[in-house]
Amino acid sequence: MRVTDAMPAGLQPLLAPRSVAIVGASDDPSKTASRPLRYLRAGGFEGTIYPVARRATVMGEPAWPSLRALPALPEHAFILLPTDQAMEAVAEAVELGIPAVTVLASGFGESGAEGAAREARLKALFRGSRTRLLGPSSLGLVNLHRQTVLTANAAFAEPTLARGGLFVASQSGSMIGALASRGTARGVGFAALVSVGGEADLGIGEVCAAALDLPEVDSFALFLETIRDADAIRDFAVEAAARGKPVVAYKLGRSEAAAELAVSHTGALAGEDDVVDAFLRDCGIARVHTLEGLLEAPALLRRLPIRPAGQGRPAVAVVTTTGGGAAMVVDGLGVRGVEVRAPEAATRARLAEAGIQVEPGRILDLTLAGTRYDVMKGALDVLLTAPEYDLVVAVAGSSARFQPELVVRPVLDSAGQGKPLASFLVPEAPKTLAMLTEGGVPCFRTPEACADAIAAAFARRPPRRLAAPAVTADAPGRVLDELAASALLDRLGVPCAPAIAVPVAEAGATDPPFGWPVAVKALHPDVPHKTDAGGVVLGVASRAALRDAAAGIAAAVAAHRPGVVVDRVLVQPMRRGLGEVLLGYRRDPQVGPVVLLAAGGIAAEIHRDRSVRPAPVDITTAQEMIAEVRGLRLLEGWRGRPRGDLAALAEALVRFSHAASLQDPPILELEANPVLVLPEGQGVVAVDALARIAEEEPRHG
Amino acid sequence: MRVTDAMPAGLQPLLAPRSVAIVGASDDPSKTASRPLRYLRAGGFEGTIYPVARRATVMGEPAWPSLRALPALPEHAFILLPTDQAMEAVAEAVELGIPAVTVLASGFGESGAEGAAREARLKALFRGSRTRLLGPSSLGLVNLHRQTVLTANAAFAEPTLARGGLFVASQSGSMIGALASRGTARGVGFAALVSVGGEADLGIGEVCAAALDLPEVDSFALFLETIRDADAIRDFAVEAAARGKPVVAYKLGRSEAAAELAVSHTGALAGEDDVVDAFLRDCGIARVHTLEGLLEAPALLRRLPIRPAGQGRPAVAVVTTTGGGAAMVVDGLGVRGVEVRAPEAATRARLAEAGIQVEPGRILDLTLAGTRYDVMKGALDVLLTAPEYDLVVAVAGSSARFQPELVVRPVLDSAGQGKPLASFLVPEAPKTLAMLTEGGVPCFRTPEACADAIAAAFARRPPRRLAAPAVTADAPGRVLDELAASALLDRLGVPCAPAIAVPVAEAGATDPPFGWPVAVKALHPDVPHKTDAGGVVLGVASRAALRDAAAGIAAAVAAHRPGVVVDRVLVQPMRRGLGEVLLGYRRDPQVGPVVLLAAGGIAAEIHRDRSVRPAPVDITTAQEMIAEVRGLRLLEGWRGRPRGDLAALAEALVRFSHAASLQDPPILELEANPVLVLPEGQGVVAVDALARIAEEEPRHG
Repeated sequence: MRVTDAMPAGLQPLLAPRSVAIVGASDDPSKTASRPLRYLRAGGFEGTIYPVARRATVMGEPAWPSLRALPALPEHAFILLPTDQAMEAVAEAVELGIPAVTVLASGFGESGAEGAAREARLKALFRGSRTRLLGPSSLGLVNLHRQTVLTANAAFAEPTLARGGLFVASQSGSMIGALASRGTARGVGFAALVSVGGEADLGIGEVCAAALDLPEVDSFALFLETIRDADAIRDFAVEAAARGKPVVAYKLGRSEAAAELAVSHTGALAGEDDVVDAFLRDCGIARVHTLEGLLEAPALLRRLPIRPAGQGRPAVAVVTTTGGGAAMVVDGLGVRGVEVRAPEAATRARLAEAGIQVEPGRILDLTLAGTRYDVMKGALDVLLTAPEYDLVVAVAGSSARFQPELVVRPVLDSAGQGKPLASFLVPEAPKTLAMLTEGGVPCFRTPEACADAIAAAFARRPPRRLAAPAVTADAPGRVLDELAASALLDRLGVPCAPAIAVPVAEAGATDPPFGWPVAVKALHPDVPHKTDAGGVVLGVASRAALRDAAAGIAAAVAAHRPGVVVDRVLVQPMRRGLGEVLLGYRRDPQVGPVVLLAAGGIAAEIHRDRSVRPAPVDITTAQEMIAEVRGLRLLEGWRGRPRGDLAALAEALVRFSHAASLQDPPILELEANPVLVLPEGQGVVAVDALARIAEEEPRHG
Repeated sequence: MRVTDAMPAGLQPLLAPRSVAIVGASDDPSKTASRPLRYLRAGGFEGTIYPVARRATVMGEPAWPSLRALPALPEHAFILLPTDQAMEAVAEAVELGIPAVTVLASGFGESGAEGAAREARLKALFRGSRTRLLGPSSLGLVNLHRQTVLTANAAFAEPTLARGGLFVASQSGSMIGALASRGTARGVGFAALVSVGGEADLGIGEVCAAALDLPEVDSFALFLETIRDADAIRDFAVEAAARGKPVVAYKLGRSEAAAELAVSHTGALAGEDDVVDAFLRDCGIARVHTLEGLLEAPALLRRLPIRPAGQGRPAVAVVTTTGGGAAMVVDGLGVRGVEVRAPEAATRARLAEAGIQVEPGRILDLTLAGTRYDVMKGALDVLLTAPEYDLVVAVAGSSARFQPELVVRPVLDSAGQGKPLASFLVPEAPKTLAMLTEGGVPCFRTPEACADAIAAAFARRPPRRLAAPAVTADAPGRVLDELAASALLDRLGVPCAPAIAVPVAEAGATDPPFGWPVAVKALHPDVPHKTDAGGVVLGVASRAALRDAAAGIAAAVAAHRPGVVVDRVLVQPMRRGLGEVLLGYRRDPQVGPVVLLAAGGIAAEIHRDRSVRPAPVDITTAQEMIAEVRGLRLLEGWRGRPRGDLAALAEALVRFSHAASLQDPPILELEANPVLVLPEGQGVVAVDALARIAEEEPRHG
């Protein structure tokens, strides 16, 4: 449980302290613990600094033996001591009521059982206090607008960082240094860089939220190894979107190897990458997959608004004087699912009117028209006002390096007029990139970062606030039997096949109300995987067969699961659909309630053919999910096949996703599998269900 | 047909001419046609230059009115004239016997029917001549070791290119300029850069082959939009591998949009990307997907030998002082299927012996041990001699920028000792990258380029020479009926289900030799898609039913395909397998003979679940292909299912792939679909076949 009740009005003491204690400051410049004091002084920190050390002076400054011995209460204590001593200093800081504490030491949640116990003790120290913690394992933070270089990261020995609007928060402490140097080389100005460490108290969401209303902050970049505070991140993202301050994230864990690393390195439970992806998109956060993209995307995102779902595919114009260079961007966008579209006839006519000869095709290739200012400017004037485009990308060739006045100057002169405009320079052209950056044109060094950032920008959805879940993923729960699980589906409004529960002893005594043949299944909460346990008989066509089936099921389950007594079976009519899907709902340990749509059958598992979203979803999102499951193309009239009722499936998916809102009981997991998709107009019907509900009472208030 | 018969002993006049005519040289420095003369002079070209122009002097040099008027025969004519005049000048050059001609003009194969006709005339000019053509649409070439800046690419106004060992050949002319400037900024030295243009005569394979034995050339980088000379590329790649001179390629066309661009931009037929991918791998060419990778990979490839197939997955060690930075590389490699492996116990023990504390896990994280020379050097000494690794990657953090002596110096000191070693620097650190490049350590600026280059390097297979195909993909062909197609499978040694041909009139007159039930199919070359035409009846269980089935098929086909008279049916026993696959063979228009293995059924099509290779394949490659088809996991004992006879499938795939070698008749296309995979030990059996063979006689000699 994170300490959120004690949230102060603002985190000014964290991000912009007026006085700082450096606990464990070292006199030896080769030591990490010497850095914060040196960097604060070199950076021109205007507040008070209290070195806390065993010696009388540190680097010629008077030092104090303990936090308690300080002449005044500092706003922020940066604790550089080794783990055990750090715990003592933290206790002292909390007791004294120091508002913000940053802990460098590691050896907490990421370090096995012992570390977890230590982290629990650390959290206990803060509970109910007014002190907020950054870390542990935090390398500190740098606030460039306050001359606050409060970090142990060696990269900040340099005093040359450019001040600007980008707020960086990173779970990896070393990355704040790398991002600082890379950004500076690219003309990116930083507002602050924060190493959030192990997030035992303050998470990345709260840290960023604290900077939302700083006028100097215009965008956020997150370096994520895991997600520990999904709710806070979502809340922050909603507010950031409301303020037009975009958020970009680079998240490790696309591969299984890295997901495993996240577990060992951060102690967090690794999530499935598509779930994390869906979460970030749903939060309006642009997730890039290139390191350069993390630094280059913010300029684009500041100009490209988040598109609501259901507006169709975005369209990009690519205009260029270099076909080969532009094709790299087109290819990169295509691979990432973004369409570079040829101009409409009206736009082509306007280009012709303007006297601009364009080769036919998807790219607006001005090679024939010539590498000239008026040609590129004329083309941009038309494209930036063409209704079909969401974004125009100008790709400049060699002239970008030697004669920026020809192709790059018109890009600069067109920036801010009409549609968003971005640029990729094919040659090495650092000076021209700097010109573009300074001129406010989002620009990219590689075709990959360009395509990556654009695709990430378009993947965003307007973030929404979700009700905090009543219970967390790790709440104790119990499994319901199929009848009870089906009743939950009923409550949600998801169509279920009719079913009756019949005592084994009475099976076959009467005809089922829905006629023959029927399916017969073991009805017991301890037999969730009925088929594996011999608990299913299909195509039962008579009372005698029903009696035999029920007895057979009871016997099979008894053999398979000794001690489990099946005394009831579920009887359902046999149904067939055009296709089958799986609907799944769960509280993901990282990102909270999610809903899943997967193609039925084993192929779905092998091909990982599924779509996932934070729950609940609306009808537009449900349709988007259906379009993402490749196997469902078979139900869209593929090669003359009959069409399935995908409209009903979308409706069912929306209703199913409201499992997230059910409070009594709170649902931990719900699965309808299979759900039969019937022919168009005939709906869908769930024929099996599985549910795990929370045992405890929901939290109230 | 390309002109290969007239191949001179060497292409010295092309790549290293001692005299050059600049045809259409302009006096106006703002004109493209002014560049070659200026650049040659600025670059210090030591040979003779003959400006050919309508005026008496060009840029103060005497000019001649035509090639014919020159005082001596130049070795190379660079023709800068517009398309129609260029054709005249080419004709003159050929007539005069000038050994090499480069044509700048466009408007040939890429420009519709008119362009294609013009290209045909161009090719006709060269046929049987001793003149070789570079282009059309070639921006020329730059040979840095001969001070030959024979190009119209504006990028070469700069005289600062670094001379070195990388030979660049590009189908995009503008890209040679961009690669030159980007490479120079990265310390890459170039031997030459050649814009091959539309490859009407000389293709990229022949151009590169001409440079194979130049001592100054140590590696090749190709920028490809299409593949026009697969055989020549393969021959070149075999020779390059034999000389230990690696080849890296960036190929456009991963997305459908870009494939379509390749068609419109270059006039070439776009190939399917996985086919191109398989071709390049089979040629031992490392295909990168990042632009940076194209420039950064050669240094790695020069140190990393091509691994033969069947050696298992390669293993990479990642050693670092920065967990977050290294995790980006691990993630990138994981996504690309390359395993970063934790050290074996013995290696771990050696590290401990050396006093190096390593955190547990996949990455060798030296954070606890400290950012020190002796720590990194000690770790590298162990890792570079550890038997489990194919490659060691050292990832350096902030110290790479400020204190290269700590972590980068030991990397430099370890280069060339034991296993291959590469490096990724997390911060911006251009000076340190230059140090590493100079010190011969392959190094990368982004985690993406690092992972891209490594994955591309490991994907290569030792190239093999293949017999030139007897016919090309566009040879006229005819479709065989199923019985004849099955006979081809028989000749190849691929097991087929027994089958008899029965006249429709006699169907049901006798019992089939293999008993009942049987499958009955229309037997006619004009009905290749029998099911669609109503030409298949399954489960026929009696003589009467067989008679009805045959008559029904004849009637159905007659209705479906008026004019087609089915007078025979094929009768086969009904067979079932554990699974079904498709085997396909064709002559791909770009890369030549390829063999395809795909999962059976529609899901395969929807999920594009297939593996492809140049044909023929050996047993190791066949096994690799089986492992790549995800649907075949179901036959590997997946979740307790019975195992299919995948060994027999591999054997059948090898035999099937020898369709490439059949000469009489040469096969254009062959498909066995479905091929049933029976339980382990029982083999596989093809139950349907389709073939298209060449009608003409094969070329001999």
